[in-house]
Amino acid sequence: MSKIEPKTLPGFMELLPNEQILFNQIKAKIENVYNKYGFLPIDTPIIESAEVLLAKAGGETEKQIYRFNKGEADLALRFDLTVPLAKYVAKNYGNLSFPFRRYQIGKVYRGEKAQKGRYREFYQCDVDIIGDGTLSILNDAELPSIIYNIFKDLGFEDFTICINNRKILNGLFESLNLTQKSTEILRIIDKIDKIGKEKVIIELQKLELQENAINTIINFIQITGTTQEIITKLKELKIENETFKIGLEELESVAKYVLAFGVPQSNFKIDLTIARGLDYYTGTVYETFLNNYREIGSVCSGGRYENLAEYYTDKKLPGVGVSIGLTRLFYKLNELELIKAEKKSISDVLIIDMETQDTTYLKLANELRAQGINTEVFLNNKKLKAKFKYADKLQIPYVIIIGEDELQANKVKVKNMQTGEEKLVENNAKIIADNLK
Amino acid sequence: MSKIEPKTLPGFMELLPNEQILFNQIKAKIENVYNKYGFLPIDTPIIESAEVLLAKAGGETEKQIYRFNKGEADLALRFDLTVPLAKYVAKNYGNLSFPFRRYQIGKVYRGEKAQKGRYREFYQCDVDIIGDGTLSILNDAELPSIIYNIFKDLGFEDFTICINNRKILNGLFESLNLTQKSTEILRIIDKIDKIGKEKVIIELQKLELQENAINTIINFIQITGTTQEIITKLKELKIENETFKIGLEELESVAKYVLAFGVPQSNFKIDLTIARGLDYYTGTVYETFLNNYREIGSVCSGGRYENLAEYYTDKKLPGVGVSIGLTRLFYKLNELELIKAEKKSISDVLIIDMETQDTTYLKLANELRAQGINTEVFLNNKKLKAKFKYADKLQIPYVIIIGEDELQANKVKVKNMQTGEEKLVENNAKIIADNLK
Repeated sequence: MSKIEPKTLPGFMELLPNEQILFNQIKAKIENVYNKYGFLPIDTPIIESAEVLLAKAGGETEKQIYRFNKGEADLALRFDLTVPLAKYVAKNYGNLSFPFRRYQIGKVYRGEKAQKGRYREFYQCDVDIIGDGTLSILNDAELPSIIYNIFKDLGFEDFTICINNRKILNGLFESLNLTQKSTEILRIIDKIDKIGKEKVIIELQKLELQENAINTIINFIQITGTTQEIITKLKELKIENETFKIGLEELESVAKYVLAFGVPQSNFKIDLTIARGLDYYTGTVYETFLNNYREIGSVCSGGRYENLAEYYTDKKLPGVGVSIGLTRLFYKLNELELIKAEKKSISDVLIIDMETQDTTYLKLANELRAQGINTEVFLNNKKLKAKFKYADKLQIPYVIIIGEDELQANKVKVKNMQTGEEKLVENNAKIIADNLK
Repeated sequence: MSKIEPKTLPGFMELLPNEQILFNQIKAKIENVYNKYGFLPIDTPIIESAEVLLAKAGGETEKQIYRFNKGEADLALRFDLTVPLAKYVAKNYGNLSFPFRRYQIGKVYRGEKAQKGRYREFYQCDVDIIGDGTLSILNDAELPSIIYNIFKDLGFEDFTICINNRKILNGLFESLNLTQKSTEILRIIDKIDKIGKEKVIIELQKLELQENAINTIINFIQITGTTQEIITKLKELKIENETFKIGLEELESVAKYVLAFGVPQSNFKIDLTIARGLDYYTGTVYETFLNNYREIGSVCSGGRYENLAEYYTDKKLPGVGVSIGLTRLFYKLNELELIKAEKKSISDVLIIDMETQDTTYLKLANELRAQGINTEVFLNNKKLKAKFKYADKLQIPYVIIIGEDELQANKVKVKNMQTGEEKLVENNAKIIADNLK
């Protein structure tokens, strides 16, 4: 029979079991933090009606989307978890309690150009808080504490949650009568880290901005310092614009409360250059960087939006949320060897029976499982050496051996696979369990 | 702005949060049992090349599959987790340890006719053991103990794991020279519960079976009794056929070891009418029934197959596995009210601050989370009554109230939402945590 090549599509992550164990541990840690803060899980379909998914899309999204017909139906695969959330909230409005705090961890699909570290199928881990009509700015201050706890739990210390407020940027441009050029200006100032101040000025001049406006913008984006210093300097700009003032007030509130929510001063800062795309976010915006690996880009981003579901409902539903692109993050962290599994195997112990014609070993396996020990039994005919090699390859930390001698003495032999140490232990699940730590 | 209807496609399950909590608990219990037995997790893509997915398909599968083009690529959504497993094992053969014990829990897609309780997107929870060349019959006996533990953990007691062996059926038909009619015969005898013995005989006569053959088949399928009685009666049939004899030996081994693996006699039986489809399984087959709800159909099924990945590789890879169709099972169990969440809310406690202008409540929230308590803070301006209603609707079991009086006394008020009982507790996370149980 001619064979078909068992290939996986480019841009689709498919891990070997030991990597999958690590991936799942990271996913579980993120989910655990979401649960710790009392967010509710939802699980929306991966396939939706194209009309629903593309209600607001356009540009890149529309080009990248997986869209197809099945019978009469015009279908598409979700490309993020925000549009499905908007649909979900609009659809179930009467059955939800607000503020609606939800998380969703699931795969999304974008037919991007395949390249190293870019995925067409990837996990997003989204957490959002949706208000009914209004939503207190305190929610914007809670999210950084969620980000903080996730990256702390993943073993990081040196990371920075950067916070800004889009109203400050928007208000600045309004005050300069530059709202129509704001998109291009944002794109230019976003490059200051890469190309430097002088080139930014040249590019702004190309946009035919007046010298006065250019100076204001340059002064603005060069504002740095402690949170309090930045707030003070922003106030000193004396920009007479209502949007700017509201943004500044919001940012001041968020910065103050972030501390109360338990984020250390060293793990967040105001960064006035962060804008997060162009028209989606309307208030607070977040990006998160591992300080020694800024080249990875933001590892957790998000922000405040005025109206989640305007394409589906007249209800005003403001929200704030962040998302982690887990597949790409995992790829990068794994490549840089920045993450290690706490537990490298699923099984805590492998039981090997020395062909005793006795089923004591099967009984023991069940008793150990009842003690919370993940217990695997080697059930196949192999040489003893091959059985140990199996435990070794799977990094199972302990092996229990039961032979005739052990049976007669009502004991089992416990071998620590890392140290090679062997000891005889009474055949009692509780006592054995204590010897597997 | 004209609105788009926020609809979810028919045949796609999308749960409200309280149902989702229950669904996730069930999924976690299944996964927990798979882990307890030392199975390794894998997570294959939902999209595969159509050529890979359809290597062996045909008939219904091919009609139901979601298949589409993206650019040049001919793609399809997986319709089960077995074909992706076959691809995975063939592709990663050199990097896996055998026997390869893997589980996968994920969504699969079949464009079936939409009807109540039938889903086009549904979770399968698969567990399989793949051997390299050979695989001991002991593995066939381990799987019923996994099924047993899952349904016990889900709160069921009165369920039966039915076991058969396809070699017995195949051998019987071989001995009667009826191999070519076996498909139709199996279809007829499968109906005996519904149409009765007499009609089965009439239908077999229509197939032009000789009276002698019909008698043998009817005698065969009417064999019942204890495991030992059935084995004895099968031996007494004195069917001189090698396949039959091997099947009988295998079935006897499985039945004997299932007990040693810890499945009570009352939870499994041999059922000679079970065949599980027509050409996939080659040895042991399983179906599982909730005895008082047989109308649900089998809640966990599977079996032994000779060669997992023959379409992709020359390696002989025998396997045995079972699968739970979780989405449909959840729908049925929920409809029949046979499952209840152990924990109805994600949050263990909701903290309400009485606008104290003090951030003690935020600090306490973090301290409680560190104690393992899922802690939500009500962060929005609402009347106190509305905040309690929120806790009530979300079935959060406790509310902590912190007002000026409590702050001055360094205490918090803990309200049990079920009993209405309130008590003042010292503002110490450990002491408060002890009061939330």
